[in-house]
Amino acid sequence: MFPMNAWYVASWADDLCAQPIARRICNEPIVLYRDSQGRASALVDRCCHRGAPLSAGRVTGEGLECGYHGLVFARDGECVRVPGQDRPPKTARVRSYPLVEKDGLVWIWPGDTAAADPEQVVDYPYHADRARWPHKHDVYAIRANYMLLIDNLMDLTHLGYVHGGTIGGDPKTHVEAKMESTPTERGLKFTRWMLDSRPPPTYTKAVQFAGKVDRWQEFEYVAPGAVLQWSGAVDAGLGAYERGHRDGGFHLRLFHAVTPETDSSCFYFWSAANGYRQDEPAATEQLFAEISAAFAQDKAIVELQQERLAELGEDGLVNLKADGARLHMRRVVAGMIEAESIKPESGGADESA
Amino acid sequence: MFPMNAWYVASWADDLCAQPIARRICNEPIVLYRDSQGRASALVDRCCHRGAPLSAGRVTGEGLECGYHGLVFARDGECVRVPGQDRPPKTARVRSYPLVEKDGLVWIWPGDTAAADPEQVVDYPYHADRARWPHKHDVYAIRANYMLLIDNLMDLTHLGYVHGGTIGGDPKTHVEAKMESTPTERGLKFTRWMLDSRPPPTYTKAVQFAGKVDRWQEFEYVAPGAVLQWSGAVDAGLGAYERGHRDGGFHLRLFHAVTPETDSSCFYFWSAANGYRQDEPAATEQLFAEISAAFAQDKAIVELQQERLAELGEDGLVNLKADGARLHMRRVVAGMIEAESIKPESGGADESA
Amino acid sequence: MFPMNAWYVASWADDLCAQPIARRICNEPIVLYRDSQGRASALVDRCCHRGAPLSAGRVTGEGLECGYHGLVFARDGECVRVPGQDRPPKTARVRSYPLVEKDGLVWIWPGDTAAADPEQVVDYPYHADRARWPHKHDVYAIRANYMLLIDNLMDLTHLGYVHGGTIGGDPKTHVEAKMESTPTERGLKFTRWMLDSRPPPTYTKAVQFAGKVDRWQEFEYVAPGAVLQWSGAVDAGLGAYERGHRDGGFHLRLFHAVTPETDSSCFYFWSAANGYRQDEPAATEQLFAEISAAFAQDKAIVELQQERLAELGEDGLVNLKADGARLHMRRVVAGMIEAESIKPESGGADESA
Repeated sequence: MFPMNAWYVASWADDLCAQPIARRICNEPIVLYRDSQGRASALVDRCCHRGAPLSAGRVTGEGLECGYHGLVFARDGECVRVPGQDRPPKTARVRSYPLVEKDGLVWIWPGDTAAADPEQVVDYPYHADRARWPHKHDVYAIRANYMLLIDNLMDLTHLGYVHGGTIGGDPKTHVEAKMESTPTERGLKFTRWMLDSRPPPTYTKAVQFAGKVDRWQEFEYVAPGAVLQWSGAVDAGLGAYERGHRDGGFHLRLFHAVTPETDSSCFYFWSAANGYRQDEPAATEQLFAEISAAFAQDKAIVELQQERLAELGEDGLVNLKADGARLHMRRVVAGMIEAESIKPESGGADESA
Repeated sequence: MFPMNAWYVASWADDLCAQPIARRICNEPIVLYRDSQGRASALVDRCCHRGAPLSAGRVTGEGLECGYHGLVFARDGECVRVPGQDRPPKTARVRSYPLVEKDGLVWIWPGDTAAADPEQVVDYPYHADRARWPHKHDVYAIRANYMLLIDNLMDLTHLGYVHGGTIGGDPKTHVEAKMESTPTERGLKFTRWMLDSRPPPTYTKAVQFAGKVDRWQEFEYVAPGAVLQWSGAVDAGLGAYERGHRDGGFHLRLFHAVTPETDSSCFYFWSAANGYRQDEPAATEQLFAEISAAFAQDKAIVELQQERLAELGEDGLVNLKADGARLHMRRVVAGMIEAESIKPESGGADESA
Repeated sequence: MFPMNAWYVASWADDLCAQPIARRICNEPIVLYRDSQGRASALVDRCCHRGAPLSAGRVTGEGLECGYHGLVFARDGECVRVPGQDRPPKTARVRSYPLVEKDGLVWIWPGDTAAADPEQVVDYPYHADRARWPHKHDVYAIRANYMLLIDNLMDLTHLGYVHGGTIGGDPKTHVEAKMESTPTERGLKFTRWMLDSRPPPTYTKAVQFAGKVDRWQEFEYVAPGAVLQWSGAVDAGLGAYERGHRDGGFHLRLFHAVTPETDSSCFYFWSAANGYRQDEPAATEQLFAEISAAFAQDKAIVELQQERLAELGEDGLVNLKADGARLHMRRVVAGMIEAESIKPESGGADESA
């Protein structure tokens, strides 16, 4: 179960070229490609003739050509050529998906086409701001329901247990963090402060601290799949918390977007931006390597969690104090799914059947 | 769903020796072997004592000995020895399958034993004619329903898209071929002519052409699984089409037999015979290598097609002009399956339950 | 289907240390570990917070710490610490399993806790008797229902067919063995004598015989999963059978315990004890190697058997004279399962749901 009427990241923009990519999103097999004019495009990955996946075809000047019998499809899904016939049959077409390319990301809308509003796509201007926020990005294929990864980001008490040696540091620091949470129209924001705490390994590799630090984590969750993070630390006692003095020190922006593949798997698109030694590519590389290692730890634990939950369900599980943001997030997503079940979808969505 | 009352190729004759082979045919686990007198034999691959597969056993002078507790079965399925007992129990027997060995092929009949008529086994004398049609053969395990492979052979417009670099050549040549089709009692025949066309790579590697060629493809489909092909080309304008002058040039005979393994997999038995430079083993080898590569391309595309059709079904697919022979073939097979469902089977088939 | 109210071997005692082991037993995911005091412990392998497997955690002074958010569990399943909370919620606990460590083995009881009686754990003092019965042990993961392995041990006519080159020897010897069988309260005992027979390869590698031997196999089956074996041979004609003169010659004790993992897989715990050249570690090693090879042969055949039975069931299979002990064993286990279905379980078992 996922909201279908929602924008999901389908690809990093620079991973997408003429060579088609097969990617399952929200249980639908989709082919992503750039047409001969460079426009990112998304069609259902099944030719309407004999069902071959279009991702096994190639882009021509006319459109996407099926690799089996040569039918060609325009990016709106219309079949524009059938070899050996003057004209394609009128019914020859495949579903196309609304698509927005913005901030280095390709977003698609798997639900009701008529409801797709490009204005709702999350803004993330930092990807374009290479001077202040040089970054690197990746995508992980995770064998777990996408909610488990969002759960992970909403309860940061895991940092000391899962990421002690990288971005986490001492467990006690995290479980005692000051946490302030605010609901938003499409999710929630929360901020955590760890005042006068020891900086974790990733931070001390990045910058030189005098000793203890005042450390913050600002998170914004935008349902269903995006989490925007700004974390950092400055030397303790300079008034970072009380007076907003956060210049210098360590600054990190993480973009997280989780896209359901199936009920038990998802794609984790993430970028890490270096906000402390922007002129040093090696610093950005090192940061990326540290975050890669940390997110591989998250991948490992949520995949194990998925196995157990898939077998035993959530019956008998107990919520803790640290679950507040997570439970709010779950309610927002459940509300989206419920809203879709009440308002019957129109038009486009039927074509996916 | 497959016709059960039909002959299917179970093995190449020269692949079958005393060492038993386990092979699933039409969803039934079958053991194939030669007994001590060299007779090809087929039994259900389950000992009637504790269910061990007989394919894990060995051939003795008495029959096929189970590798677990030593029971021995004759090729008609009767248990002829139980170690430690004077006499096997009367009910100790396993199902045997009607079997015909002919033209280098072992055919079996998975359905009602009483209905098996050896006269219906397809003739293919070219396998024995080593002087005029030297050949090599292979078997591919395909992860696709067997019908998808027959579909492939009935719609040759795929040649330009799937096999451009080998047996296909220019797509336009194929989609503009003259096609004549004739129903037969057990399938159909069709002939395609590509007059004054450029020969494809496989042809030009095989023989020297002056320039363009008159090229033909003669196909005979014999339901449910056999396709007999004669293809060739001679220099254009010599009257190959008009007056039947087809001497010289390039001649190729392909034997195709597709045998269902499960609903989503099959075996593709094929041979390629060199009818142009018969005295040169290297020419036969080269032809075999070219055809191997081409059929690996078919395997790849039908396996991808299988994945999509298994998930999404055939709803909404559109038939094209090129689908005539394919649709006729499908109707013939559907008719065989329907006929079996009407006429209740007698005797032997029950033993397979 | 397995008896749940029964002791099953969960691990060799010396394989179990602080590092948790994940092991599925009777379809339940279980974590095995030693706590900081060295006590072997077994909990359900799912944290009661977010379902992460506890086997991904670590043992601390307080108990088993979950690797995700740091909850700690005592060996009785109670949650004794939740990071960031003064007190764990009262409902925070996981199921623990009754456990007995004895004779080098860790046994657990997957069923109704109240019914677990440590007195019922099978005795096997030979594991501790390193002077007279030096041994080595192993555990095989078998992809077959556990009954198929017990079947294997109850019908030794397979020895000549499966193990001709190791512990079996000539098939005829086995099928003609004198077999005496006696029911016991929890299973059965049987003894087989092969008088004046040729010793099998494993025996002759171990000791020097003058020629033929009087050979015995004494088996005790204790339902549901244990088989205790004493096999041996002395020179023929010395009165081993008639007068009980069994000194010298070849003596082997095998401990077999089969524990269901799932309906189609099990663990085979076994040890082989050298009762003939006890002062020679190399003799024990060689015996272990021979038995390892023989049991790998059993693994291979029962896994093949499993595939067939899983697909085709047991309908139409025929019992033979040699199946007496096997059928008795099956009736005992069926009786245990039936008894559990009649007497509703109390208490503990519900927690596993």
